[in-house]
Amino acid sequence: GDQRFADMAAHRQQNLTKPPGSLGRLEELAIWLAQWQGREKPRLERVTIAVFVGNHGVASRGVSAYPQAVTAQMVANFAAGGAAINQIAKAAAAELCVVPIELERPTHDFTEAAAMSPEEYLEAVDAGYRTVPDDCDLLAVGEMGIANTTAAAMLCAALLGGGAARWAGRGTGVDDDGLARKRAAIETALNFHRGILGDPLAVAAALGGRELAAIAGAGLAARQHNVPVLLDGFVATAAVLPLARLDASALDHCRAGHVSAESGHRDLLREMRLLPLLDLDMRLGEASGAGVAILLARAALACHAGMATFTEAGVSGAGD
Amino acid sequence: GDQRFADMAAHRQQNLTKPPGSLGRLEELAIWLAQWQGREKPRLERVTIAVFVGNHGVASRGVSAYPQAVTAQMVANFAAGGAAINQIAKAAAAELCVVPIELERPTHDFTEAAAMSPEEYLEAVDAGYRTVPDDCDLLAVGEMGIANTTAAAMLCAALLGGGAARWAGRGTGVDDDGLARKRAAIETALNFHRGILGDPLAVAAALGGRELAAIAGAGLAARQHNVPVLLDGFVATAAVLPLARLDASALDHCRAGHVSAESGHRDLLREMRLLPLLDLDMRLGEASGAGVAILLARAALACHAGMATFTEAGVSGAGD
Repeated sequence: GDQRFADMAAHRQQNLTKPPGSLGRLEELAIWLAQWQGREKPRLERVTIAVFVGNHGVASRGVSAYPQAVTAQMVANFAAGGAAINQIAKAAAAELCVVPIELERPTHDFTEAAAMSPEEYLEAVDAGYRTVPDDCDLLAVGEMGIANTTAAAMLCAALLGGGAARWAGRGTGVDDDGLARKRAAIETALNFHRGILGDPLAVAAALGGRELAAIAGAGLAARQHNVPVLLDGFVATAAVLPLARLDASALDHCRAGHVSAESGHRDLLREMRLLPLLDLDMRLGEASGAGVAILLARAALACHAGMATFTEAGVSGAGD
Repeated sequence: GDQRFADMAAHRQQNLTKPPGSLGRLEELAIWLAQWQGREKPRLERVTIAVFVGNHGVASRGVSAYPQAVTAQMVANFAAGGAAINQIAKAAAAELCVVPIELERPTHDFTEAAAMSPEEYLEAVDAGYRTVPDDCDLLAVGEMGIANTTAAAMLCAALLGGGAARWAGRGTGVDDDGLARKRAAIETALNFHRGILGDPLAVAAALGGRELAAIAGAGLAARQHNVPVLLDGFVATAAVLPLARLDASALDHCRAGHVSAESGHRDLLREMRLLPLLDLDMRLGEASGAGVAILLARAALACHAGMATFTEAGVSGAGD
């Protein structure tokens, strides 16, 4: 990011016909986009929504309300245009890029092995990295994958502590028994992998998932190309937690599109000092929350670029 | 509103390819629009943003950071397309309807007289009532008027208690001295009008303002025509408070577009049992927050109408 463009955008905001600061987070969004795009007046011509998809060995532990077959069925639904994110992408005038990663080869069940080998992990990171167009003006990242809130809670428990109780929620709507199995799986894995919990990348490989690794890869590519990023919900945020543990400034180019209804998300955002743009009780994934947040970015830039200044409009300022 | 259409829309939501309830408030928005439009699949073809504008005698008490001339200057800015709400209306594909009401004749200073006579009050209500097209699919209401957060805080203090300290905030950004004058004006008026505080309509006339009366009138017309309404911030919400005090169900067709940064708004929404859609630290008025919330309604209906059902998409349901 380039602070000079943030300063120019902030200066412009001060002169627009409104009390200074009165557009709140819409002003902050415009300034953030200016900083990362390197433009006083940022643009949203090419907006990409990337949805990464993976399968999880831990699904066999009965941690989800849905069978694993739903992962591939939903990829077909994305392709046919029938999912929520298809409609949201259209409403946000964004291109939708769905990236299934080796669905026929789920990760290993991390209660008894590493979910991925280092090589498998890096391949998934690379799949995400390669997804980001370098001329992208804004990237929204999300995911789909049966059992992946278990993997997300796993990363949080491994890297932030507090045990399964702090991080395991109902995901797509698992019942009490399923939730108990989910917590037990996480506790078992915390014990099995206790030797690596201090190493964020080892944790990401052994306890994460392919679509989570790809989200981290997309986040890295976006940083490389100065592309601002909107994170989706609990899984997408947990996916970039390892980056934040490696470097506290690694996510400066990211904003939280929303806080989801999944129970651990609010706590996770607080830990990562990310302030969500939306709080709509959503818990779907698919980048749906980040996709809706694109609409806020569009409103923010419409005001930033289109409003008259006090001088242009002949409006008196405060105290005139 | 027609509950049958709400039920049909809720049934449709249950069958779309997502865990039930996972679109959160987007589902609720679609169901609410169905109920008031009387359509299983609501539409947003004609969306109107109404901005009512008035001047206030109490401005002479030094309660605002801006001179009263700014009210008319901003009307010119609206006409020229240079204000925030012009850009937001464009982004939301909504028609903008700005209604100045006797700007050259401010209300009387309510610290020493009734702001409006009953006749003046009803004229302003009628101006609002006549603004609502009967074929409108969704109406967003807001306002502009130097010193009108003082009138809004006045209505809240008169009808909900707690004194000026509970309701007076910084509005467009008044300094400490101005805030003290604002509180003093409210306390003086509470005492001067102490005989009418039990009568919501008398309070609306004697202590409100023309643009606030017009918002209440627009709310009544919308109810008459079954038009769903998005309320803007503190002033717009206070403007319909007298209706809520007359009939607890009077605002069933309304949703709070956002909670503003103006200090009394969160408390007022809680009192009126309105749950805001957005919380973006905005405090501009002009229907800007309600205007941004139109984007959420569009996203909600895109999902509601465009998503495939589990059967259509061949996706397994929970527990299959």
